[in-house]
Amino acid sequence: MTKKGILLLSGGADSTTLFVHALEKGWTIYPLSVDYGQKHAVELEAAKQIVDYYRMFYYEVKYRNCVKDLKVLNFDLSQIGHSALTDETQEVPNSMKNQIQTVVPFRNTLLATLAAAYGESLELNPITIFMTPVKEDFETYRDCRIPFYHSLTETLRLGSTRETEIEIITPFIGTTKAEIIALGTKYKVPYELTHTCYKGTRPACGKCPACIERLEAFKTNSLKDPLEYEKE
Amino acid sequence: MTKKGILLLSGGADSTTLFVHALEKGWTIYPLSVDYGQKHAVELEAAKQIVDYYRMFYYEVKYRNCVKDLKVLNFDLSQIGHSALTDETQEVPNSMKNQIQTVVPFRNTLLATLAAAYGESLELNPITIFMTPVKEDFETYRDCRIPFYHSLTETLRLGSTRETEIEIITPFIGTTKAEIIALGTKYKVPYELTHTCYKGTRPACGKCPACIERLEAFKTNSLKDPLEYEKE
Repeated sequence: MTKKGILLLSGGADSTTLFVHALEKGWTIYPLSVDYGQKHAVELEAAKQIVDYYRMFYYEVKYRNCVKDLKVLNFDLSQIGHSALTDETQEVPNSMKNQIQTVVPFRNTLLATLAAAYGESLELNPITIFMTPVKEDFETYRDCRIPFYHSLTETLRLGSTRETEIEIITPFIGTTKAEIIALGTKYKVPYELTHTCYKGTRPACGKCPACIERLEAFKTNSLKDPLEYEKE
Repeated sequence: MTKKGILLLSGGADSTTLFVHALEKGWTIYPLSVDYGQKHAVELEAAKQIVDYYRMFYYEVKYRNCVKDLKVLNFDLSQIGHSALTDETQEVPNSMKNQIQTVVPFRNTLLATLAAAYGESLELNPITIFMTPVKEDFETYRDCRIPFYHSLTETLRLGSTRETEIEIITPFIGTTKAEIIALGTKYKVPYELTHTCYKGTRPACGKCPACIERLEAFKTNSLKDPLEYEKE
């Protein structure tokens, strides 16, 4: 039986690596991206390019049929704001110190629930959802911790239209970004297509918490990040 | 201390009664409505009129300050569809038999989560959310049952940006619509301002599951529903 899963693809390095990891493990993937009013909506363009790459240009032809159309949902959380990522009145912080300002209230709850609803519309059962919390997220992002995902899975199971098996798979929840880059490099993930910077600029700013962590992860692997960064 | 709560106000008879009930119990209410792409978006107009009524025209002047501005969020679930209420390719059923078609996948999970996010943006702590599942919802709507709300509360508690007390209050979960109408009549709820019909027509269709249950609730109380209905 084909294993099918919905994967929340942000267009960043972590979820892109998980996407390729799932393909390598034999999953058929329905990629899902959400335009939630993030200032770095340019990441959605990255998600499209990554999906196109694996559908059309991937060296392993056998995987092409395992990547379904990218679904992009518009769900504008800037209507609620209260995060440096969605609120025009707040600036994206320039250091790790203020990372808490980059939390988008209940983002992962909303994203997983949208994925589950999308799964119902596809009439999947079980509904399997791939998400990419990583080890570094643990401290600041409470919705990137194991007990949260256990509870969320139960909530979705109880709240589905009909009795449905629901599973949220988070293989990288205890994995560092450096380990993810190492794995993805093995898989030949096209990191040059991904986007990470919270400011949404290209070249990337190199200073926001997302850029800092990404650069560090490549550095730990003695690899050069293929993305361009702003010069000082 | 002022008791403050966010109340999901659909503009229908049940949530409007809960709104007034909460005011009568001394709560200050932040009403929240969501345009989720429902065919009966006319209910949002009803929600606005109800809020205006209690802010400006209510006979008990002392309650006017207890009703905060109505927040309306746009989160278009017709992008996912798979429900007769949001999907143009599906017709709203004309009997109770096909009520399951009126389920909007994970609607209550999404609405409660949006309410919690709104609560964070208002910097409320605790975040108290009023919702209106009723006894008749139990059979068809799995997201209107007690274990679901327990689990959802825990999920929101674990997924909030900072540690926050979260409470979902559902006083009518074991209450019939007839009992709700009886209570609301005691409170002088202006039911003529509410909207219930799933087809979104005015006069109301009188045949969809929502109309059928509403008419029955008034009939049980030997009351005349002040809304107009289509003639045969």
